[in-house]
Amino acid sequence: MSTCCGRRCWRSADMKRFLDLADFSRAEIVDLLALAARLERQPEPQALAGRMLGLLFMNPSLRTLASFQAAMARLGGNSFVITPGQGTWLFETRLGATMNGASAEHVREGIPVLASYCDVLGIRSFAEGKDLNADLAETNFSAMASLVNKPLINMESAVNHPCQALADWKTLDDCAIPTHGKFVLSWVNHPRALPLAVPAATLHMAAMRGMQVTVLRPEGFALPAAIMQKARAAAAASGGSVTETDDRAAALAGAQVVYAKEWGATAAYGDVKADAALRASLGDWCVQNSWFTTTAADCRLMHCLPVRRNVAIADEVLDGPRSLVLQEAYNRLTAQTAVLHRLLAR
Amino acid sequence: MSTCCGRRCWRSADMKRFLDLADFSRAEIVDLLALAARLERQPEPQALAGRMLGLLFMNPSLRTLASFQAAMARLGGNSFVITPGQGTWLFETRLGATMNGASAEHVREGIPVLASYCDVLGIRSFAEGKDLNADLAETNFSAMASLVNKPLINMESAVNHPCQALADWKTLDDCAIPTHGKFVLSWVNHPRALPLAVPAATLHMAAMRGMQVTVLRPEGFALPAAIMQKARAAAAASGGSVTETDDRAAALAGAQVVYAKEWGATAAYGDVKADAALRASLGDWCVQNSWFTTTAADCRLMHCLPVRRNVAIADEVLDGPRSLVLQEAYNRLTAQTAVLHRLLAR
Amino acid sequence: MSTCCGRRCWRSADMKRFLDLADFSRAEIVDLLALAARLERQPEPQALAGRMLGLLFMNPSLRTLASFQAAMARLGGNSFVITPGQGTWLFETRLGATMNGASAEHVREGIPVLASYCDVLGIRSFAEGKDLNADLAETNFSAMASLVNKPLINMESAVNHPCQALADWKTLDDCAIPTHGKFVLSWVNHPRALPLAVPAATLHMAAMRGMQVTVLRPEGFALPAAIMQKARAAAAASGGSVTETDDRAAALAGAQVVYAKEWGATAAYGDVKADAALRASLGDWCVQNSWFTTTAADCRLMHCLPVRRNVAIADEVLDGPRSLVLQEAYNRLTAQTAVLHRLLAR
Repeated sequence: MSTCCGRRCWRSADMKRFLDLADFSRAEIVDLLALAARLERQPEPQALAGRMLGLLFMNPSLRTLASFQAAMARLGGNSFVITPGQGTWLFETRLGATMNGASAEHVREGIPVLASYCDVLGIRSFAEGKDLNADLAETNFSAMASLVNKPLINMESAVNHPCQALADWKTLDDCAIPTHGKFVLSWVNHPRALPLAVPAATLHMAAMRGMQVTVLRPEGFALPAAIMQKARAAAAASGGSVTETDDRAAALAGAQVVYAKEWGATAAYGDVKADAALRASLGDWCVQNSWFTTTAADCRLMHCLPVRRNVAIADEVLDGPRSLVLQEAYNRLTAQTAVLHRLLAR
Repeated sequence: MSTCCGRRCWRSADMKRFLDLADFSRAEIVDLLALAARLERQPEPQALAGRMLGLLFMNPSLRTLASFQAAMARLGGNSFVITPGQGTWLFETRLGATMNGASAEHVREGIPVLASYCDVLGIRSFAEGKDLNADLAETNFSAMASLVNKPLINMESAVNHPCQALADWKTLDDCAIPTHGKFVLSWVNHPRALPLAVPAATLHMAAMRGMQVTVLRPEGFALPAAIMQKARAAAAASGGSVTETDDRAAALAGAQVVYAKEWGATAAYGDVKADAALRASLGDWCVQNSWFTTTAADCRLMHCLPVRRNVAIADEVLDGPRSLVLQEAYNRLTAQTAVLHRLLAR
Repeated sequence: MSTCCGRRCWRSADMKRFLDLADFSRAEIVDLLALAARLERQPEPQALAGRMLGLLFMNPSLRTLASFQAAMARLGGNSFVITPGQGTWLFETRLGATMNGASAEHVREGIPVLASYCDVLGIRSFAEGKDLNADLAETNFSAMASLVNKPLINMESAVNHPCQALADWKTLDDCAIPTHGKFVLSWVNHPRALPLAVPAATLHMAAMRGMQVTVLRPEGFALPAAIMQKARAAAAASGGSVTETDDRAAALAGAQVVYAKEWGATAAYGDVKADAALRASLGDWCVQNSWFTTTAADCRLMHCLPVRRNVAIADEVLDGPRSLVLQEAYNRLTAQTAVLHRLLAR
């Protein structure tokens, strides 16, 4: 599933691509997080002087857009942003297409060209949300990644979001959440289907960290087997575990972290009407204070943002002391600073 | 009305927020303008090296967008720009909202997150133009400002635009307009209602500088009492004065500055049809050369831009020697360079 | 047609405007290309420290948007981007307009203001595509250029694109294409009319370089006399030649370069229906491998991008070894780095 050049590339100062935490060993991620913490304490404002980060957004962004520019600037570098459909024409991604429609440029030209203008390229390209197997195979992102002969960063693909996962791992460390603590990834509601990228990346990250992970979701929203298997492999290597349930009471009992996330119905992938029908009766899948009755007393609430207040998570939780959502977002900056440093610093 | 931390914060190199000229003493503003002039003569291209300015635009911009990035770069810093609706989703601002509509992120997350990525944040958020009292109270901007724990700049709020006011004050100084000269703030026409931010800020600035200010406007367009009272208080402290009239001939006689500005009918605030009816017969409220027959011979024309040519001001005036509009716009750069330096330089 | 300040300005480190290759002697362009090659080998990451590039896009962009920011950053400078209609209101360009429509700001204010915020301004403003003579006269671009009292760069105007031409010249040099080689500028199909800027600039560039240029196009798509004459004058000075034909077999025989480009029907300029009727039967004007049967064996394929795959050029050619399109795009960066250096470095 991953297009990464693999672990062979990962020797300190020799990382070439940051596409998936699974491309790295646990020790390598721990080392990267140590670099993030060091750069947070001791900035290196000249480390990437004269270097350029290209940011290609096929989909909207807030945290990624701002935090990558801030991270690059903190290291003395600069960035450009390209957003097809916003000042730039739309991109065609289909191989062999006769381009007589709305898209004026093919990724086969657009992406190598942008790569030639920068020292590292970040690409965001969400799931198409039509064909589950195509999305699981990262068909689009892999095709784009194969066109880049520069250091490359996955800024969220169909089923991955390694920058978010790295930031979340750092947040867990910063808050001293035990390595083998109970981590509940809970489905929450949303007006429409959202991609599997964050739930898949979060599940894998928590398993790779060594946590006892429970995926809590209603019927129809089970995570695909490939995603579960990848996480279980990571758990096996780290001493963690992965289970899945639709029993909220059982899942939340003793939890040290509730990570709330919205995603689409996997039982009706790409079927807007069926997805809507499945979620219509799931209005109580909105995290309330009452969810924390049987958790650990200091159980924390996590979410990658943006979050629909009072649809996915109630104000009382987001505005209360359990919430780590702002720390997670801040750690996008610290985590990505480390990724850029590792990819580019000499 | 202001959310500023107040005058206690303002000691050289200790300013924390730039939200309203009224938060500062006249002497403090004079000092800030001296800094602007000094940085214009003697740039400090390393003063803010490695520092980041976040720019959040809830509304369109030209001068503010370009001049803040230029100011930050002149001081060696860098910037990122976030524009909800342009590459970023829309923001929800209502407290307690159940977010099942178009807005994907609440300002309660979005703004603290952006603040965590930068050293100083600028926010632009125009008046809603529906409820005059809510706009006068700066309800929206204050709510956003309360979420920021970093240095903060008001890039135009419902009834304020301190960066424009500071640039205009510098322009008056640069052109040696007498401190106690006659300053006419004249309403001019526009295809539709515009906010009160610039007229309110301009009126207060001129009064605070010590000028003899006349607000000239047709019936139905009187400035709200709160705005007039704030300006009168500033005039009392500076030796200036504030009067209001609909008598154009009396207002213009002896004027040393005519500051033209469009705003909505305060007698029909938020009522698009009534506003249109009021302005329908006011086509002669377009500044012509003939307006300057009884002014001082060297009377200058000011406007904050953008301006509708031949609706608000005739070509003959904008293209003539009286016009200071380009100098005002240029001074956005010099004034904001001083604000950034004061907020951030060590 | 050009608004350039002319050759008088062009002494090393004394160039003021980069608007048209025709404003410079052949030797001056060769010298500029030598600077580009030198900066490619020996970057000068502090040459433009503290300097600001303003980028004004009246039309969409990808290469220009990214490569100018990258070029400026490589030299230690920074950039801002203004895109009317994307975060900034629309611009009015008509002199004397009563601005009661959609456009909130006139270029007579907007452009001098932006120029005052930067050290060099780039402007992109495509042909209107209605009145051929107005476009040939560069009416719009010249009006905007006349408002700028700073170094100025043409980032594509109605009938010119000097940055693309410079990048293409460098690409021809990099690939050791003989100075007097046969260069075929061939019309290719597109779903709708495109401007004459690139064909005009390419034709002139190749002629100025000294090449034997053939313009190959179907009936109805002849380049205007003014464009042909300008190229013939350049050819006369450089020892090159310019011919025009609709005979593809004759044109391609012995070609060392095929430069494919789409443009609108000059016989029906501004007439969308007539243009569509003319191109409806021209589907075979899509470059295939079969076009290279009688060319030089190592004949190269050039195109400025973006390109409609399988409409203008077939996959088999774009993905084959003849294609220089990525090198051309990369040379936008190297060529523009030289232009910025020449305009600004002390």
